Amino acid sequence: MQTTAEVSGSGLDLIFKYIDEQQNEFVQELKEWVAIPSDSSDPQAWDEIVRMLNVTADKIKTLGGNVELADLGSQKMPNGQSVHLPPVILAELKKDPKKPTLCIYGHVDVQPAKKEDGWTTDPYTLTEINGNLYGRGASDNKGPVLAWLHAVEAYQALKQEIPVNIKFIIEGMEEAGSNGLDTLTEQRNMTFFSDVDYIVISDNIWISKKPALTYGTRGNCYFFVEVEGQKQDMHSGVFGGSIHEAMTDLIAVLDSLVDSSGHILIPAINKAVAPLTEEEKKRYQGIEFDLEAHKKDCGVTKFLFDTKEEILQHRWRYPSLSIHGIEGAFFETGTKTVIPRKVIGKFSIRQVPNMDPSEVEKQVTEYLHKVFAERNSPNQLKVTMPISAKPWVADVSDPQFVAGRRAVQTVFGVDPDLICEGSTIPIARNFQDVTGKSIMMLPIGGADDGEHSQNEKMSRSNYIQGTKLFAAFFYELSQLPHI
Amino acid sequence: MQTTAEVSGSGLDLIFKYIDEQQNEFVQELKEWVAIPSDSSDPQAWDEIVRMLNVTADKIKTLGGNVELADLGSQKMPNGQSVHLPPVILAELKKDPKKPTLCIYGHVDVQPAKKEDGWTTDPYTLTEINGNLYGRGASDNKGPVLAWLHAVEAYQALKQEIPVNIKFIIEGMEEAGSNGLDTLTEQRNMTFFSDVDYIVISDNIWISKKPALTYGTRGNCYFFVEVEGQKQDMHSGVFGGSIHEAMTDLIAVLDSLVDSSGHILIPAINKAVAPLTEEEKKRYQGIEFDLEAHKKDCGVTKFLFDTKEEILQHRWRYPSLSIHGIEGAFFETGTKTVIPRKVIGKFSIRQVPNMDPSEVEKQVTEYLHKVFAERNSPNQLKVTMPISAKPWVADVSDPQFVAGRRAVQTVFGVDPDLICEGSTIPIARNFQDVTGKSIMMLPIGGADDGEHSQNEKMSRSNYIQGTKLFAAFFYELSQLPHI
Repeated sequence: MQTTAEVSGSGLDLIFKYIDEQQNEFVQELKEWVAIPSDSSDPQAWDEIVRMLNVTADKIKTLGGNVELADLGSQKMPNGQSVHLPPVILAELKKDPKKPTLCIYGHVDVQPAKKEDGWTTDPYTLTEINGNLYGRGASDNKGPVLAWLHAVEAYQALKQEIPVNIKFIIEGMEEAGSNGLDTLTEQRNMTFFSDVDYIVISDNIWISKKPALTYGTRGNCYFFVEVEGQKQDMHSGVFGGSIHEAMTDLIAVLDSLVDSSGHILIPAINKAVAPLTEEEKKRYQGIEFDLEAHKKDCGVTKFLFDTKEEILQHRWRYPSLSIHGIEGAFFETGTKTVIPRKVIGKFSIRQVPNMDPSEVEKQVTEYLHKVFAERNSPNQLKVTMPISAKPWVADVSDPQFVAGRRAVQTVFGVDPDLICEGSTIPIARNFQDVTGKSIMMLPIGGADDGEHSQNEKMSRSNYIQGTKLFAAFFYELSQLPHI
Repeated sequence: MQTTAEVSGSGLDLIFKYIDEQQNEFVQELKEWVAIPSDSSDPQAWDEIVRMLNVTADKIKTLGGNVELADLGSQKMPNGQSVHLPPVILAELKKDPKKPTLCIYGHVDVQPAKKEDGWTTDPYTLTEINGNLYGRGASDNKGPVLAWLHAVEAYQALKQEIPVNIKFIIEGMEEAGSNGLDTLTEQRNMTFFSDVDYIVISDNIWISKKPALTYGTRGNCYFFVEVEGQKQDMHSGVFGGSIHEAMTDLIAVLDSLVDSSGHILIPAINKAVAPLTEEEKKRYQGIEFDLEAHKKDCGVTKFLFDTKEEILQHRWRYPSLSIHGIEGAFFETGTKTVIPRKVIGKFSIRQVPNMDPSEVEKQVTEYLHKVFAERNSPNQLKVTMPISAKPWVADVSDPQFVAGRRAVQTVFGVDPDLICEGSTIPIARNFQDVTGKSIMMLPIGGADDGEHSQNEKMSRSNYIQGTKLFAAFFYELSQLPHI
């Protein structure tokens, strides 16, 4: 390979032109990736994930990357069977110690999808309609992963030197909980991650038509509150009126959690929430978000708050409590006159800085036991917390955000919004806790991509402009003062 | 057939002796009936109900009965398909205008049963263990129907004249809601029912080891309370904190129904309840019912009330409210972070004299709308009452109860307890409303028969002594002043 000129503004122009010219090939390659049903929800179908990971690894190899398929061992399933986990791709391109090193995280598994769930097109056949590319994984997360690879490809095709060292960590179990990835991160912290300067994740979406950089995600404490009554399910005709019903107790306990304005009633739980700073407040004002359009999208006449700022703050930087359902009670259509023996209420509290899940667990448990004790019921209450994921928040003055902002300006001609995700992406916090590196999310998916839903899509524009964004991001990272 | 002597006390002794001698044949016949899986819960399996009805009809014909299989037409299923209902047996034995006419109601369909549900024996193979006959339908209601037929058979075998005229109304859809039977009763009110003096139902159980006569059942108003929120199920991470959640509204609304002492909170609903009379109060004192043993059976340490009288009164003659479950929320094991779009709470209120279901519907609907309005939620509330069954109560001074009491004294040597059922048996109230005839329940099933449960059984003793009870009941009815 001949020595290539150092990339520059004009070099980027050539790269952008190349990406535009190659766009049909890039869409075709996405079509091939979408055709592999790498659904991680069903261990029986994990062969397809392995196939998808091999296709990804081969692609990285054609770009000159060294690829390791890191083994994660086996996982015990609820039925007692042991299933071997798909591996994780750890890869790196040619390394130059003078350049900063960017580690790109992505995943190539997908959520389940069936035509009969209500898809208009076959979910595993990428189909373009009015500029949108419909298919499972188009946005979450095969499209973005390919966009990263195509950005690399563009530099190489034009024989331009990529201005950063690039590593990839690509998994096939994200939608199933990233099983084993945290352990792998710890194991490779002093090796694979040791020379990494920046970790970038492109596994989320914008919140409007405007590009965005993401600096935070909420965590999640998920609770089971179980009330156990009599020996077996009973007939409400025969026993109703004589027995302390577990369901009545549970309903009362669940009703003590949150009021009709969304305020969490568990004492002290809001005390740990980081106060809203003036700088943060200002940040919310500038975000592009059409509240009226959002109401229409959601099909509601009213939100819990009236202003854009309040709504976004309560989605992103304040805790929220949702009651998801009850296990053990009658749930079918029709009627059944049962007094259920044991019922398990399920609710979760989204975590924000500086909440501490173990503290939250204590507060919730104590509170529910107190509420229950006041009922003087002979039934048994048990509170457990099967999920505990911490929030992630980055410092938006981190240089990586500067590079991200500049890359957005270069490609889209606008300043990106600084946004958060209300949902939980544990991998960001895990990377942060274990590696201590700079982490940013650089989404290219549109607000209406419908990740996890029927008719998931990415627009051709977002896919191609996103590829340019990534190429520009390489350049902007290299322009930062070397860390 | 030669003229038979009129039955007398000594005649009954012979009949009892015959029943004892024939008991193995009677058990064998029950075994044959139990072997037919006449489960009415699944319309696909209604062929088995028709087969069971034909076997029953043939048996009645061998006793010299005229049998009509009354057609009930078709029923529209939830999936839109129309399914032809199994017929109802209307039969009568030889008629003598000088004798009173007894109409015996029973059913030969059963609840679902599968070995894997936790049966110790095959549910459709009647199996005798320690004096108990285990099998689906042994107690509910094939055993009692056969006991009636064997009582007739005993008179005939001994060439004794049956001292009453006998009619049968035997259905195959009781466990599925007696579909069509109310209409048939109305249609045949002036024909089949016109010469009936007494209707007897033996489709329930004792409440202790002591025989009982049943004079009341509670009715039931079943409610759906639906809260509809946003356009579709949403992710609690993304939207939690910004949206009025339907589930939170529903939990609050359900929590307003009943307090921890079982007291119904809907205003005025208790006002219609008939006051407890002194005579009634006394009746409760005499009932044999071991509260401590009952606690142990239920697996509870405490009931809502401390005395036998209160417990029985609250099961039988006061209303009760049970919350059965929620449709539309997350009900499975594990975790799901969903904000359900639409949830339907299900609860029911057992009805007692003099509650009026249409009044109850109004009270409940108004109350829930008021509670909901106070939440100031933009979600939609809908309250419906898909089931409305009135209570049934008989006058215990009715001559039929005199005959019942005497028959119990003859066979068991004790005075029966006068009991009620807390559950709803709409057929009694329907017969009462339409025909205006004297109605009594004469149970022969034991308190621990486990109707609707795994390991349903009837003891051999109850089955055989019950057959004698029915034979004696024919005699005692004939001894009443002719009505």
